[in-house]
Amino acid sequence: MSTSQLQGLSLVGSSRGSASPDWFVAVNPATGEKSQIIFHGASDVEVERAAELAAAAFPIYSTLPGKIRAAFLRRIAEELEAAKPDLLQLVPWETALPAGRVEGELGRTCRQFRLYAETLEEGSWVDARIEHGDPARTPAPRPDVRSCLRPLGPVVVFGASNFPLAYSVAGGDTASALAAGCPVITKAHPAHPQTSERCALAIRNAVQACGLPEGVFSCLFDDGFEVGLELVSHPVVQAGGFTGSRRGGLALLQAAQRRPQPIPFYAEMSSLNPAFFLPGALAERGAALAALFHTSIVNGQGQFCTKPGWLLVPRGAEGDAFLKELAAKINATPTGPLLTGAMLQHYRKAQEQLAAQPGVRLLAHAQVLGGQPHAGASLFEVDVQAFHANALLHEEIFGPLSLVIRVRTEADMVAFARGMEGQLTATVLASPADAAHLPVLWAELERRAGRLVCNGIPTGVEVGDAIVHGGPFPSTSDGASTSVGVPAMLRWTRRVCYQGFENSLLPAELQQSNPLKLNRRVNSVVTRDPG
Amino acid sequence: MSTSQLQGLSLVGSSRGSASPDWFVAVNPATGEKSQIIFHGASDVEVERAAELAAAAFPIYSTLPGKIRAAFLRRIAEELEAAKPDLLQLVPWETALPAGRVEGELGRTCRQFRLYAETLEEGSWVDARIEHGDPARTPAPRPDVRSCLRPLGPVVVFGASNFPLAYSVAGGDTASALAAGCPVITKAHPAHPQTSERCALAIRNAVQACGLPEGVFSCLFDDGFEVGLELVSHPVVQAGGFTGSRRGGLALLQAAQRRPQPIPFYAEMSSLNPAFFLPGALAERGAALAALFHTSIVNGQGQFCTKPGWLLVPRGAEGDAFLKELAAKINATPTGPLLTGAMLQHYRKAQEQLAAQPGVRLLAHAQVLGGQPHAGASLFEVDVQAFHANALLHEEIFGPLSLVIRVRTEADMVAFARGMEGQLTATVLASPADAAHLPVLWAELERRAGRLVCNGIPTGVEVGDAIVHGGPFPSTSDGASTSVGVPAMLRWTRRVCYQGFENSLLPAELQQSNPLKLNRRVNSVVTRDPG
Repeated sequence: MSTSQLQGLSLVGSSRGSASPDWFVAVNPATGEKSQIIFHGASDVEVERAAELAAAAFPIYSTLPGKIRAAFLRRIAEELEAAKPDLLQLVPWETALPAGRVEGELGRTCRQFRLYAETLEEGSWVDARIEHGDPARTPAPRPDVRSCLRPLGPVVVFGASNFPLAYSVAGGDTASALAAGCPVITKAHPAHPQTSERCALAIRNAVQACGLPEGVFSCLFDDGFEVGLELVSHPVVQAGGFTGSRRGGLALLQAAQRRPQPIPFYAEMSSLNPAFFLPGALAERGAALAALFHTSIVNGQGQFCTKPGWLLVPRGAEGDAFLKELAAKINATPTGPLLTGAMLQHYRKAQEQLAAQPGVRLLAHAQVLGGQPHAGASLFEVDVQAFHANALLHEEIFGPLSLVIRVRTEADMVAFARGMEGQLTATVLASPADAAHLPVLWAELERRAGRLVCNGIPTGVEVGDAIVHGGPFPSTSDGASTSVGVPAMLRWTRRVCYQGFENSLLPAELQQSNPLKLNRRVNSVVTRDPG
Repeated sequence: MSTSQLQGLSLVGSSRGSASPDWFVAVNPATGEKSQIIFHGASDVEVERAAELAAAAFPIYSTLPGKIRAAFLRRIAEELEAAKPDLLQLVPWETALPAGRVEGELGRTCRQFRLYAETLEEGSWVDARIEHGDPARTPAPRPDVRSCLRPLGPVVVFGASNFPLAYSVAGGDTASALAAGCPVITKAHPAHPQTSERCALAIRNAVQACGLPEGVFSCLFDDGFEVGLELVSHPVVQAGGFTGSRRGGLALLQAAQRRPQPIPFYAEMSSLNPAFFLPGALAERGAALAALFHTSIVNGQGQFCTKPGWLLVPRGAEGDAFLKELAAKINATPTGPLLTGAMLQHYRKAQEQLAAQPGVRLLAHAQVLGGQPHAGASLFEVDVQAFHANALLHEEIFGPLSLVIRVRTEADMVAFARGMEGQLTATVLASPADAAHLPVLWAELERRAGRLVCNGIPTGVEVGDAIVHGGPFPSTSDGASTSVGVPAMLRWTRRVCYQGFENSLLPAELQQSNPLKLNRRVNSVVTRDPG
């Protein structure tokens, strides 16, 4: 065994040279083969070193002009693109995701960095607000008051298992935090350490190429929980981002809240992403909807946070016909490995448990050939009454599986919406014939989901200015936040106010001449004029 | 004893008709006299009733056009102004605050409602973002994605003791939450129940005059913690706002976090508001600064969240001269009652404790005439080394008292700033001669305070568009928030995203024709055009 393909490189806290007795290797989930490359869990000394470097980097990095940070983000995107040949080897081996997915996800990952770069280049995202003073005001003069968003400090980002590029070491949390001006310490997900290391190397190259302090970015490894808990608890760390399980997210959230100085912790945890099929839509285009939702359920082996896990389908002939179509497609779905062997075991156990629940019927399942380490897509059905009586049916199952919940009427759907926990998404499929029911259903869903999808599928989160990938608890720990898109930067900032400042001591964003040509609110009016 | 001046009115959960055995009365802190009017703590049934009414009001109130909500807020301001004769009686009796302060604070309270009304009338605060779809995009069409801020749901607001108008039942948290579209249940502060009831009546009058659902606003009483904890824990309640002690704020915050569905809880808790006097400023205008800071320390009997509790003063002749001036003014300060007898006891105990600490010297104190229930202003001094060695000196003391911390050099000030906990404000007094030291000092302070004040005083929080009244923990529970000014509304909202929606089902804020003429981001460009 060697200790690294990239031997000699000194990513803080990565495998090489660690004194830690904990070690692990990547495992190919398609074959069970173990990698020859050893990763060591970061030692306490390495955690401390990463924190120290990040603390030292913050005053420098946080005050760089946005355009410099933008150039850095663009350079990261280029370095990631240069890593494509490596990633096309590493990602499929470590995750069983196909090469096409790697290409698509890499494109998305680079797009994220470039979107934030554009946002920094334009600059108005800091929401600068200026109110001029009035020395003549009585009884007391009114001072000049200015404020804008400023970065929080070093943050910790946890790589997610299901997006080894777009939501892992070089993913959206890292990109948005670096954009906001915060140094990032990533805790790589142990399911894809080599991919993580390669992405970390790309970012480190960009740090060096741009002449930034080393501590702007670090990557630590661990196949347990300790390093993550240490990082969340470290006084230098001022916020955290996480995408993963409800259990893991809550444990880290609690650690963040229990610190002497609590910090915000943005955990995206669990979502069933209900889809409500109204009768008119099923009558009009049931077969097309079956094809559309089959794709949404099984794409990426159902390992998306926004996979539709609950399908609300009315009783009756049109619902039956829709489900017959969908079941046929599920039965014919090619089987495949999941991201890890542990996830596959969990998926199979969940399938068995589900099948054993009172009132639950198996509508379809793709047969796994004997001995293959594959997940077979499956579709279960239950009446809404039995659903409500059984909390086990309310839990997210990661993998290509959906639970159909049969309802009698649109009123049942509204009642279901009213009773459900917070979700990342809620989808309604409707035709003009369903119009009467829509406002009341949407009103309930709006209160319980971050993104409402009309006549589409919830998978495929657009990266942009208006997107929300977040939602009320338990889908995320902070229902007012999004972890995708431009507003994701806001999580790593707070508003700081400057009262009575001389112009030269103000951040450029707030200076009189508006040197950065930002859209600012000056005396409550949006303008690019001086102020 | 009677049960109310306002007998027969049915504010939910207020004194009249309650079956609760808990009762209390207002006490005049200047005389010790007890009021004849009995207030009962809200019963469980009343808490439940307030929650039910708020839940019923939310779908209606949250979807009203902003202009209707604005008219309601303006009406509240008018009702409060109409209550002025009553308030000029009630507030001084219950709080010992003088009539002039009541007039000023009432003006501020009404200004807050009108500021939010203006914000709603203009409407762009919802930060509407629109990204058009692209049916031709490959491999998948790009959907139309729109998002804006939407209200969270019913919220609970805790009245603060120190601003019986501007931060109590009709205060900034209530105003900003009502503005955001959230029904409000207030828990009145027991130190001024009659003032609270009168303000609640004004708001209830406005609710009725505007034809709004009763549950848009309720006011509950309690002189303990139970009603507050019940409200924070109630499933209907979706957020909370609090201004008060660190202990009380943390207890409520923990209750909010421990719910099956945790909710955001915005607690403003504790701040020492350090002021750094640089040598050049003291040399240039030490006497003027002494007069300015004397006012800031003793105004309102030092019962402001932003009272300067720590004065960082260099050793040497100029610092001594400044302190001599300030001490003379402190000695000559008229004594007076605090907001409650308990606060006075606490203040006196804190004075004694402080005087007994190693290295702490009493520089000045205003003598209280024998037996008077008054607080005397006081000024203590300690060396920075002794300060750092004694955690007791780091605690906020409510009342007209400041602790002078003597330092040797500007580097001591920077080190002090680096070590301090989060603050609402940090102030620096400087002259051109101090210029060399400013950037490094401001850089440290920026990380630990919400509002930086240059050559001014921290007391007197402007109500406006750019203000921040918030700061890193422990000054608030959420360092990214402000509880004063336009951005305070954001606390009660979350971003909701609408993907693939027909125009007619979108909120007006996001509709194609831009019917509300908002500034929106359309394909990342700010515009009032359709989109």
